Amino acid sequence: MNFEFSEKVKGLKPSAIREIFKSLTDPSVISFAAGNPSPLSFPVEKLQGLANEIFENEAASSLQYGITEGYYPLREQVAKRLKDKFNIGKDFDSTIIVSGGQQGIDLACKVLCNEGDTVVCENPSFIGALNAFRSYNVNLKGLDVGDDGIDPCELEALLKKDKRVKLIYLIPTFQNPAGITTSLEKRKAILAIAKKYGVVILEDNPYGELRFSGEDIPTLKSMDDEGIVLYCGSFSKVLSAGMRVGFVCGHSELVQKIVVVKQTNDVHTNLFFQMLCSRFIDRYGLDEHVKSIRALYGKNCAKMLSCMDEQFPSTVKYTRPDGGLFLWVTLPEGTDMKEFIKRTIDAKVAVVPGETFLPEPDKKTYSFRMNYSMPTEEQIEKGVGLLGGVIKSMNI
Amino acid sequence: MNFEFSEKVKGLKPSAIREIFKSLTDPSVISFAAGNPSPLSFPVEKLQGLANEIFENEAASSLQYGITEGYYPLREQVAKRLKDKFNIGKDFDSTIIVSGGQQGIDLACKVLCNEGDTVVCENPSFIGALNAFRSYNVNLKGLDVGDDGIDPCELEALLKKDKRVKLIYLIPTFQNPAGITTSLEKRKAILAIAKKYGVVILEDNPYGELRFSGEDIPTLKSMDDEGIVLYCGSFSKVLSAGMRVGFVCGHSELVQKIVVVKQTNDVHTNLFFQMLCSRFIDRYGLDEHVKSIRALYGKNCAKMLSCMDEQFPSTVKYTRPDGGLFLWVTLPEGTDMKEFIKRTIDAKVAVVPGETFLPEPDKKTYSFRMNYSMPTEEQIEKGVGLLGGVIKSMNI
Repeated sequence: MNFEFSEKVKGLKPSAIREIFKSLTDPSVISFAAGNPSPLSFPVEKLQGLANEIFENEAASSLQYGITEGYYPLREQVAKRLKDKFNIGKDFDSTIIVSGGQQGIDLACKVLCNEGDTVVCENPSFIGALNAFRSYNVNLKGLDVGDDGIDPCELEALLKKDKRVKLIYLIPTFQNPAGITTSLEKRKAILAIAKKYGVVILEDNPYGELRFSGEDIPTLKSMDDEGIVLYCGSFSKVLSAGMRVGFVCGHSELVQKIVVVKQTNDVHTNLFFQMLCSRFIDRYGLDEHVKSIRALYGKNCAKMLSCMDEQFPSTVKYTRPDGGLFLWVTLPEGTDMKEFIKRTIDAKVAVVPGETFLPEPDKKTYSFRMNYSMPTEEQIEKGVGLLGGVIKSMNI
Repeated sequence: MNFEFSEKVKGLKPSAIREIFKSLTDPSVISFAAGNPSPLSFPVEKLQGLANEIFENEAASSLQYGITEGYYPLREQVAKRLKDKFNIGKDFDSTIIVSGGQQGIDLACKVLCNEGDTVVCENPSFIGALNAFRSYNVNLKGLDVGDDGIDPCELEALLKKDKRVKLIYLIPTFQNPAGITTSLEKRKAILAIAKKYGVVILEDNPYGELRFSGEDIPTLKSMDDEGIVLYCGSFSKVLSAGMRVGFVCGHSELVQKIVVVKQTNDVHTNLFFQMLCSRFIDRYGLDEHVKSIRALYGKNCAKMLSCMDEQFPSTVKYTRPDGGLFLWVTLPEGTDMKEFIKRTIDAKVAVVPGETFLPEPDKKTYSFRMNYSMPTEEQIEKGVGLLGGVIKSMNI
């Protein structure tokens, strides 16, 4: 049997990270390649207690079909928390529950983009989003992120030239993979340009709550007085990634269309875990729990940076994140990246090669991504030492 | 803000059933409109016990990211059960876990169809599938199902004429909404035609296990020696609908592409519930549990049929299903269906109008769907009485 696949999925490759994740069963490898939250961030006992309450009092409704928009109390809680803590949500906005942030990204593209349209992304950007866009056969244009986000002038030049841009995809806070945060000034400029050209911004903010240093910067969505920003959030990094529960907040007209398309996609998100999230927020709130995750990641990040400061030569540059899960290391121009990655594998330390995150695959990169949420302090020390050894072995 | 939606989703409407489901909060309405499994079919205590074991012994992995293909032991169990019980799965096949059968249908279409391609369906057919296909902007062609499935000659004529048919979507067993089962003879003929024209069949079989009378008929997939049939199954009707766990079995080449696209869609299916399904099968097996559901639905269906035999005039025709959740009632040609549905609502009894299930909306139908898995025997008696009253009031 010879299958002919649709144009949109023909060239689609599995995410290199998911593939790396699969191969990381060798316990002797120290992995900085994951995008996983720390298992210490899962409030297991509390979830178990609440799960038992649901089984005892509401089993029938938790195991039955639910409505596509999501479990109503959870939608209300999410909307209230977005409003109270982040000033997100105007009268024209509404909030729905999705099966992880990934589904929000996928459906946003499906709803807004025809094949051949353009999605503007940061360069580098989240591979899961890039592949979701690719699966709808859109063109990806990447704008370099620099230290504080993309250059608004470059964005404007692109929008002026390319009339098929239907979506601007940004992770303004603790960007994946670069670990940088877009400045307030740039956020305002980007928002003004999006408005001027009438192009929807998809603000992906899975890490926004995980700040361990510096001051919060207002989200794009909080400054959105027209409904041009679609905001995507997730419980993956604050309660559980495996449960696949996220949310989307945006102009009701847009959100209603996303609901209709979600209905054809998976009917609704696992209802039991929607109820579990809702009970958790109700009983314990998220703030205390998030605080403990922040402290953990802050400690790990500081440890990783201090080890790198010690082990890496000054020719190697890296970001110093104020939050999130990742930092981004750049080797000197001209480094043989294939050889470098080969040597890290031989040394039994795993990072994700930068090319994974390129919206436009023909561009060059000398960078790689490191994750500090998963490894222990001991693993960080040992793994950074191994990476330092590889770097030195290549005379970088 | 004025949003411009993609061509593929522009005309998409929410499923009438999901909308009816939302409005069914009035407890005085007797509903035969649902597609829900009976809450009595959820093995609550067993699931609770197993959930506690997972929380106690494997919490960290159950709440963490998993691989897109699905929880490995569950994949193995599903593949083994398909093989042992239904003779499904050749060497070239592989099995993955999806977020309910709905996601399997959605991804099959995404992977195989370009916009403007044709999907052949039964007329009437499952609205969730029809809307999933519509969301990829394909053309739907409906072949009337009759009493024992579509006419293979009509299928061949269509495939001969329309070179853009990329998928044949069938629910051969206890069809939704018609409650009919495609005969073995027709199954063989359909399979031969699909092979001849090289068009993939998507065999949707969410109800196949729920036979309460007659003998099992081999699935299309069990007779598939080339990998042309993609088989879609679900735990929704046998363990829990709200958990959103289903599976797809098909030629590995096709399944691998579906995995890549699922990765961009929701990364993976809720892992905790995948593990819960796996533990359930491991500890209790599905057979005993399924047997009890069959008995319940058989009793309900018999009750509904006997009430209808009593209450409905002979001008009203209906199917007599051997399994599944639905039966299909057809009023005499020319009946004012708008008026009929209006009167059922006034009488506080809910059915789903047949037009909901039309692949081609300009066709005519005088039918409606009735569900017998949800109502109690008392509700069946009272509701069928009310429907009989409406029918009489219209001099049908």
